[in-house]
Amino acid sequence: MKTLKTQVCIIGSGPSGLLLSQLLANAGIDTVVLDRKDRAYIEGRIRAGVLEQGTVKALEEAGVAGRLHREGLAHDGFELAFDGDRHRIDIKALTGKTVTVYGQTEVTKDLFEKRIAEAQRFFFNVSEVAPYDLKSDQPCVRFRHENEDWTISCDYIAGCDGFHGVSRNAIPSEVLRTFERVYPFGWLGILVDKPPVSPELIYANHERGFALASMRSETRSRYYVQCDLRDDPADWPDERFYEEFARRLGPDVARSLETGPSFEKSIAPLRSFVAEPMRYGNLFLAGDAAHIVPPTGAKGLNLALADIRILARALIAHYREGTDAHIDAYSETVLRRVWKVERFSWQLSLLMHQFPENSPFEKRMQRAEFDHLQSSETASRAVAENYVGLPLE
Amino acid sequence: MKTLKTQVCIIGSGPSGLLLSQLLANAGIDTVVLDRKDRAYIEGRIRAGVLEQGTVKALEEAGVAGRLHREGLAHDGFELAFDGDRHRIDIKALTGKTVTVYGQTEVTKDLFEKRIAEAQRFFFNVSEVAPYDLKSDQPCVRFRHENEDWTISCDYIAGCDGFHGVSRNAIPSEVLRTFERVYPFGWLGILVDKPPVSPELIYANHERGFALASMRSETRSRYYVQCDLRDDPADWPDERFYEEFARRLGPDVARSLETGPSFEKSIAPLRSFVAEPMRYGNLFLAGDAAHIVPPTGAKGLNLALADIRILARALIAHYREGTDAHIDAYSETVLRRVWKVERFSWQLSLLMHQFPENSPFEKRMQRAEFDHLQSSETASRAVAENYVGLPLE
Repeated sequence: MKTLKTQVCIIGSGPSGLLLSQLLANAGIDTVVLDRKDRAYIEGRIRAGVLEQGTVKALEEAGVAGRLHREGLAHDGFELAFDGDRHRIDIKALTGKTVTVYGQTEVTKDLFEKRIAEAQRFFFNVSEVAPYDLKSDQPCVRFRHENEDWTISCDYIAGCDGFHGVSRNAIPSEVLRTFERVYPFGWLGILVDKPPVSPELIYANHERGFALASMRSETRSRYYVQCDLRDDPADWPDERFYEEFARRLGPDVARSLETGPSFEKSIAPLRSFVAEPMRYGNLFLAGDAAHIVPPTGAKGLNLALADIRILARALIAHYREGTDAHIDAYSETVLRRVWKVERFSWQLSLLMHQFPENSPFEKRMQRAEFDHLQSSETASRAVAENYVGLPLE
Repeated sequence: MKTLKTQVCIIGSGPSGLLLSQLLANAGIDTVVLDRKDRAYIEGRIRAGVLEQGTVKALEEAGVAGRLHREGLAHDGFELAFDGDRHRIDIKALTGKTVTVYGQTEVTKDLFEKRIAEAQRFFFNVSEVAPYDLKSDQPCVRFRHENEDWTISCDYIAGCDGFHGVSRNAIPSEVLRTFERVYPFGWLGILVDKPPVSPELIYANHERGFALASMRSETRSRYYVQCDLRDDPADWPDERFYEEFARRLGPDVARSLETGPSFEKSIAPLRSFVAEPMRYGNLFLAGDAAHIVPPTGAKGLNLALADIRILARALIAHYREGTDAHIDAYSETVLRRVWKVERFSWQLSLLMHQFPENSPFEKRMQRAEFDHLQSSETASRAVAENYVGLPLE
């Protein structure tokens, strides 16, 4: 059995765990980061691509925003479309803020590069990860790495290991409460090296289902269609995908569609999920370990990194100022914001998808919601304020 | 068979039919008004009590707002409460407008008084009402009145006879499309001659169910609690009512509650309903004949009178200017607004009631919606803009 001591043991090396280790390192706090996978695998995961201004600011503060500023695309608005009618949400005019298109993959790469350059201690490809003694002053994380058993003793454990990670379930079941909604469809997404069909994102609700025209850069597009959860990506050759995608966006938009061979094609389920509390003893949950939002509105990564900003602040206050007020308030502070973002993602998902179970009345309510946004600047502003990101608390 | 000719035959002598006859009379257009009931019965019906500014303006234009201005109470805001937390929607500050508390019963009395004074032709207590020849240039309404059969020939028929009236079903079923949502509870309401528990309306969502503290004047209160649809008013002696009402409003509010013997007690179901189209040939539907909103948000009367304002304008344009553009656009114009108001009433109903079928996640979403209103001035303004009344078109 090998042992190691650190101040904060971070489980999970996705953008949440990496940003936390960076922010803590910047404050002189020692961390160890574990992951079941390795760097190449994690950097290869295709995820979200729209960053709130607050997220960009956090990455700046962490010192990893150089490439983001060079390559990221500032967006002043996005479009909602409903059966061919289009409504632009001018987020810049409505809120004074913008969002930045920059892939989660790129954020992860930037963070990895800096953490590696700064000699962050990582354990990749670990197994049998188990947080212990959470209620004690010296919790620990046990795991197996290259045929050896390890125990890391620490002051705090940060569970940044995503929805399928072990951290959440380390909280006793009589304490943990979970809330969930599963949606009766998935998103089939492709990546293609062609310029985006439109300079801004378009979320479209068409009677045949949802579609999203998104992008990663000026030459790389990310397109989605709502699909059956039982579908297999193999059911969707590119030709079928583009035909369906074009139909749902409508002829005005589809006219500009440049098609090409997709180089990523996968189906993701949609889920709303929240676990409470987000702290148990000296274990903190952050990001997908505690909550999932459906991808409509691009909140997942932003929400996770907002958790991290609040958690980093709390830990820094502990080590630097010796005050635990932020630590004690962490779960409540973060969850208040989480539920608001869950609300927004849920509402936008309800608005923009076809739900087979909707009654004719509910279908009309969906349309009325779109008409309300079209005719009410106030309603559009409420959407814009959520889209650019709610205040940290 | 007795016969009579008029320009517009109005079926229904509630506030919609009465306001239409008044606005048309003011423009020199002849009408006859029929009702299955009589004046005393209609004046005795207890209904809504909050008027939008546009509704007040329409009553002014009709020349029936004298008493309303003397006795109506201008309200600058209202409160939402959720499990004891309270949030005031300052409609005056958010929209520059106010609403007026003045009972529908009083509006009806004022309209009746003026119509009678101006010798409006009424047929009360009619039966077997049947609109005919709707697609012809000379539609007619047949009915029975004091043991005689009558036929009124006219240019247009206005169906202002409410949800249970005959007008809507005069539209052939292959043309008529209806949309409906029934809510799994009712409102038990009482009237009591005691000053209101709070100077403004309070809509409360409590884990035991919805409650509404409303009023008719500074000395007459109108209180409601969400109840089971199978309940009988007899199950709710005043003592039980006040106990439940106080609990749901919470101790801060209930402290000011003055109780007394109720003199009206009834249970109303909640329904969302829309019929399309609202014109068929020379028959127009207006108000509850075409649509019902749940009472949350007090839109029913206001929505009905908005229909009437649009219908009166269309008919006046026909007779005065010889143009049918407004008549041809009536159904579409009115329905666009109807769906928006349906949306608002539905949303506010979803927010403020206990739904037994809600999942734990959905319950949290309801709470998150309330928190969002509390923390977002923009979200509160969107509610306020709907509460004071959307533009006429």
